[in-house]
Amino acid sequence: MHTSTPAELEIWFDFASNYSYLSVMRIEDLARRAGARVLWRPFLLGPVFQSFGWTNSPFVLQKAKGEYMWRDIVRECDKYALPWRRPAEFSRRSLLPVRVALYGEQEPWIAEFCRRVMLRNFSADLDIDAEASVAAVLAEMGLDAAAIIASAQADENKRKLRARGEQAIALGIFGAPTFFVAGEMFWGNDRLDDAIARAASPVPD
Amino acid sequence: MHTSTPAELEIWFDFASNYSYLSVMRIEDLARRAGARVLWRPFLLGPVFQSFGWTNSPFVLQKAKGEYMWRDIVRECDKYALPWRRPAEFSRRSLLPVRVALYGEQEPWIAEFCRRVMLRNFSADLDIDAEASVAAVLAEMGLDAAAIIASAQADENKRKLRARGEQAIALGIFGAPTFFVAGEMFWGNDRLDDAIARAASPVPD
Repeated sequence: MHTSTPAELEIWFDFASNYSYLSVMRIEDLARRAGARVLWRPFLLGPVFQSFGWTNSPFVLQKAKGEYMWRDIVRECDKYALPWRRPAEFSRRSLLPVRVALYGEQEPWIAEFCRRVMLRNFSADLDIDAEASVAAVLAEMGLDAAAIIASAQADENKRKLRARGEQAIALGIFGAPTFFVAGEMFWGNDRLDDAIARAASPVPD
Repeated sequence: MHTSTPAELEIWFDFASNYSYLSVMRIEDLARRAGARVLWRPFLLGPVFQSFGWTNSPFVLQKAKGEYMWRDIVRECDKYALPWRRPAEFSRRSLLPVRVALYGEQEPWIAEFCRRVMLRNFSADLDIDAEASVAAVLAEMGLDAAAIIASAQADENKRKLRARGEQAIALGIFGAPTFFVAGEMFWGNDRLDDAIARAASPVPD
């Protein structure tokens, strides 16, 4: 049997981001079929936006774009057969679940944790940042919520998250989701299929 | 033989916009196969951006986004088998060709004129705004360049273009290309296929 290292596909995402929701829900199945491995790269969009001098999401700051987005995301969820309810609060604070995802990004539970937090935000329309919210998600998965949350809130993990944000800016990330395959950047759920195709068929050099 | 009015698909575009280039080149073939009719809606992005307080394209104002776009557009042109050369000047002034397109938007030559101006900008990397540039495009098509340019620069057409810009803002347009099918808005070349599908299969009411 031929064995080779599967191609790797990074997904940079924030639980506050509705287009990240689409990709977080879709990526694992697509990657499996393409024989690629997903590398989860949770980060906070807020500091990236702040580095551009923005005080909020462009969907909040730009009224016309925001109004369009709320229509577009409904059609997109239909397209991918994903549940959707417009969150009463947008964009939601996502600091704690992002910290937990960062802490657990190499754990076997990471993909399901991410999907469950996303569904909580964009289908159940519930808070995702309170400790009780994150603990509920982890407990539903049969995990030790208290221990994981404690580790996620430890100084080392907080430092890692700040470094992750600096790395995002250094990589030229300006929105989410953003994908990387062998250094090639793809922005937006609309490019997930292209990123998967690149991961499945590495360009010969 | 069954006859029915073909569904109509509006494309709002500016010759200065590189993602408009992709859609202007693709839309006529796609619409023909879907049995839909293209309504050309040339407009100037500049006044729309100015209405948001922006002095230039987001691809110029936002460095990270602009750098990504120059990579993305190369991949997109590969995807659609379209020629591409990065314009030495971006975004190019497009006032005169937009005026000509507005003047001729119901003429049989409109689609080909639009494609030729786009190729001049994004494949030949030539000025598109000088009278000689527009005249060359029209003359290559066997049209009366002098008469068309005179009509395009007449006061009535100038007023029409200002009204078109006000209409764009009123419709909530914030970028280009933007498509409308039966009042439903689709933004970006990435949504052209969805807009075509909507035009081909009207939603029953």
